[in-house]
This record gives sequence, structure tokens and C-alpha cells, in this order.
Amino acid sequence: MTMDDGEFRRLRRQELGTDRVSGASPLARMALDSLAEYAGVCTADEPGTLRKELLSFAEELQYTRPSMAPVFNLVQRWMDLIDALPASDAAALRRSAAQAADTLANESIEAVKGAAAKAAKRIGADQLVITHSLSSTVQATFEALASAGVRAIVTESRPGFEGRNQARHLDQLGIPVTFITDAQLGHFVAEADLALVGADTVLADGAVVNKAGTYLLALAARDRGVPLLVCCESFKHAPFRAKEFDLEEMDVREVDAPKGKRITARNVYFDITPARLIDAWVTEKSIKEKEKQKTNTDKHR
Amino acid sequence: MTMDDGEFRRLRRQELGTDRVSGASPLARMALDSLAEYAGVCTADEPGTLRKELLSFAEELQYTRPSMAPVFNLVQRWMDLIDALPASDAAALRRSAAQAADTLANESIEAVKGAAAKAAKRIGADQLVITHSLSSTVQATFEALASAGVRAIVTESRPGFEGRNQARHLDQLGIPVTFITDAQLGHFVAEADLALVGADTVLADGAVVNKAGTYLLALAARDRGVPLLVCCESFKHAPFRAKEFDLEEMDVREVDAPKGKRITARNVYFDITPARLIDAWVTEKSIKEKEKQKTNTDKHR
Repeated sequence: MTMDDGEFRRLRRQELGTDRVSGASPLARMALDSLAEYAGVCTADEPGTLRKELLSFAEELQYTRPSMAPVFNLVQRWMDLIDALPASDAAALRRSAAQAADTLANESIEAVKGAAAKAAKRIGADQLVITHSLSSTVQATFEALASAGVRAIVTESRPGFEGRNQARHLDQLGIPVTFITDAQLGHFVAEADLALVGADTVLADGAVVNKAGTYLLALAARDRGVPLLVCCESFKHAPFRAKEFDLEEMDVREVDAPKGKRITARNVYFDITPARLIDAWVTEKSIKEKEKQKTNTDKHR
Repeated sequence: MTMDDGEFRRLRRQELGTDRVSGASPLARMALDSLAEYAGVCTADEPGTLRKELLSFAEELQYTRPSMAPVFNLVQRWMDLIDALPASDAAALRRSAAQAADTLANESIEAVKGAAAKAAKRIGADQLVITHSLSSTVQATFEALASAGVRAIVTESRPGFEGRNQARHLDQLGIPVTFITDAQLGHFVAEADLALVGADTVLADGAVVNKAGTYLLALAARDRGVPLLVCCESFKHAPFRAKEFDLEEMDVREVDAPKGKRITARNVYFDITPARLIDAWVTEKSIKEKEKQKTNTDKHR
């Protein structure tokens, strides 16, 4: 690896690692774009070395956003494709690698659209939907429901305030938005017909990793009898369980803590919502409804 | 009532109504201070008229912060005292009215100290305590525990960020503070030994009105098996039930919502935590522990 290659990879990892605005799916596509670009600029000439370099950069990208399964999953799919290519011609390898990245990025876009279409159908017309944080799949779901009388309650989503973008986007779609602080989730969830969130990762047991605060929304929704839908493309599924999962912590300066010798700011960006608080999981492939609790009926038999 | 009197009363109501920094007890004492001052400056000369003016101003103050019971309760106590005074000498009435306000304010201060001492004893040494928002009683409890190895997790408390003051104060007391956004409550509550909040009002059934987000902390604490203590002086008890209670909404500009034709910001400052989520209520008079649930034991009999 030359110095130029190293610098390219460092910059692309940094770009991916520090982006606070994009959700997990756009970030996964950003990783694929970097791989396509690297296939063009990587200085290795010998086909075997070129493939090795591409795969090693891919592996670096995979672990840059550990809370976001699609980054790992889509890059893994790309690696599997590259691994299977013949390494006889460097120019052909470059072309195929770039093309594979494009194809996977398009698959991801189509999956987001598919998941949103299924979620919109499941939600139906004239609903008041409460959501937290920013998710491209949730945005696409609102787009699909914009002409069906949907209304939204949107949180600001500290520390990045990405709820502000969500609110602006929904406003432009003609959707009435009630905009609240994260702390008001408990009060406002009772007004909603339904809670809808995206996911950065769906764990093996159905637990959902998403922006910090999602677990609080889920608890309040359950307490007030409001169903919670999680909507994301299937690339977000990961084989881990909650205990094995590494929740990313971001730059603590975002939290704006007061200065003090004994004050330590924390900025754990995600939390884990256990499957028992989720009523339905929607992907481009299926809608999985929560299994009905049998205990209550059993009791009365 | 002269124009001067009216202007004095308007300014004092405004001061009380727009204060976002002080908790309910300091605000109640602010109301009492205003009454003591008004007893000195009120232009009415005739003792009966003077008393009527004082009582009418008191009633205005009572309804200026409807979510904060001590404002109502302490001013009511003052009104009862003034009502019982002989109205033969205006100068004597002015003196007695001012003195009554001072006495009640001191009672309130002593009650806060007493409640904090009881809470500190209940909590004990070397505990990690998670708290939300700013409360003078919670501050006094931490003061009492500062030399007993207490550590704190403090939320920033949007929109007013009063958690920043709380964190600074605890840091000055030598208490280690972990400072988080409100949305991280769910993730961090599991690390705490105990959750501790003050109250703006305790309702008739034990439900607690406090800064928005308290209900979310209570839900997360229950879900993670962390006990929740509510600590406040007994002046905060109110005879209302949750459904009759008016939750104050503050200036929506504090929420900093994006501009948009269809975007409506909301700033409901308080939420209601139902009694079933609270494990103990501490006042200067008593510690009331949650009644043990009998259903589980009954089931196995």
C-alpha cells in the first residue's frame, strides 16, 4: 500500500466514521461508493495484490461503524463478490469491483423503498405517527403516506438535532408535524396512534439498535398501549445478541457538558430496545407481527 | 387598586411566571417575597381594603404556576393567616403580612432540609444515583451525601438545560458526575443503584408532576429493576388527580423548532409519573415505601 492509498483510505474511513447526519443505509452506500472509487485509484497493478488491497480496505470500512449492521453486511456482500472474481486482469477487476458496489447500493435503495411501501400499507390512512431520530426508511414511509392524511410527532433528537431535518422534510411533503424535545416523548406518545422507528441494526433476537431514546419511546408506547413498528431493510439484520453488541460512543463535545474537574460527559449514540417492546418488524421482504402472548388466554382456560 | 399597584403586581407575576431556572420551592418563596413586599408598597390605606388587595394579589400568584403545588399551598397558608388577622390598623397589618410571608418561607426552607436529610439516610453510602432536571431538595440530598461516596448521573434536561447547573453544583460539592443527554436515560439507568427525583407537585394518588422526562426515567428504572425515590417537602402535595391537572406549557421558542408552515413546536414542561412506578416518597415528615405487591405471593398460595 502506497502513502497515497493509505491517505485515501484514512480520509474515507474518517468521513464514514464522523458522519452524524446520515442513517445506517446511506452510510452503507457511502462505504460502497468509497470501495468503487478505491477500485479506480488503488495503485496496485498486480491483480492478486489489487484484490488483496481492495478486500483489506473493505474490512477496515466494515468495522468503522460497529453499531450499524448494513455497513458490515453490504460491504461483506461486496467482499464475497470480489473474492469470487478471477484475478487475472487488473483493469477488469477494477471495473467489476466498481460495478458490484453500484449494484449493491441500488439493491439497498430498492430495499429501503420496499420496506417503506410495506410499512405504509401496514399503517394505513389518517394516522398520527410518533417517531424518534432520522431514518431514511421512516422518511420513505411518510412519503408513501403523505397523501393519506398522515400526521407526525417528531423529536428533536439530541445531541445532533437530526429531528429538525426530519421535521423540515415532512413539512415539505405537506405533512403536519408536532415538534417536541426528546424528554416530551412520554407525554406525547399517548396522543399517537402508532410509534414508528427505523433501525441501525436488528439483532438476532429481534432487539433493535437505534438512536438513543428509542428504548424510552418503546417503553412509553408500551405503557400507553400504543403499538411500536420497526421498519428497515433486511440488510440491517445482524447475527449478534444484545450482550455481544458494541454501542458506538461519539465525540462527547456534542453533549456540551459544563466544565468541571469531576464532570464526565458521555455520548452513547444508540440504545437497544428489547424485542418484547416491539409489535411488528417490517422489511422489504415481510411483516413479522409480534407473537400473541399466550399466557393470558392460558390463564383463563 | 392604583396603576402603580397594578404595575407592581403585573411585574411580579411575570417574574414568577417566566422563571425556568428555579424549582417549585424557590418559586413558592419568591411568591411569598412578593407578598411581603406588596404589603409594604400597596397604596391602599384603609385596613379592610388593604387586606382585600393583599388577598387578591395572593390569589393571582396562586394561579401563575399551576403545575407547582407549593406556590399554591404556601400562598394559601399565607392567605389563611392574613384572613384571620384583625383589620383595624393598616401599619400593623402590613407588618404582620410581611412577617407571615417570612415565617412561611423559612418553614419551606426547613422542610426542604428535613426531606433531604431523610432521603440521604434512606439512600445510604456509596451509591450511584441517577437524577433528571434540577431540584433544590435533590441538591440538598446530594449535599448531605457528598462525604458518603455518592456519585451522580445527571441529564442535561432540555429545553432549559438546567441539568448543567445541577452538574456544576455537584462538581463543586466534590461529587463525581456523569453528564448525559435526556435520550441516554434509558441506557444509563441500568448502571445506577437508584433513581432520585424531586417533584413540582405530588398528586392525591401519589403520582408525581415533575420536569418532562421524569416519566421516561421512571419507566426505564422500573424496566431495569432500579428503585425510584421521589423526594420533596410536604408543601408539594396537592389534592388533585392526574386527569384534573393542568400541565404548564412554556414558550415554544425554547424548543428551537425548524421553521415550516406545518410545523408546530410544543413545550409541555412537565409530565406525570404514575404512582405505580414510584418505590418511595420522602418528605420532611415521613418515608412512605411502596406497598408490596400482594398478587405474586397470592398466586402461589
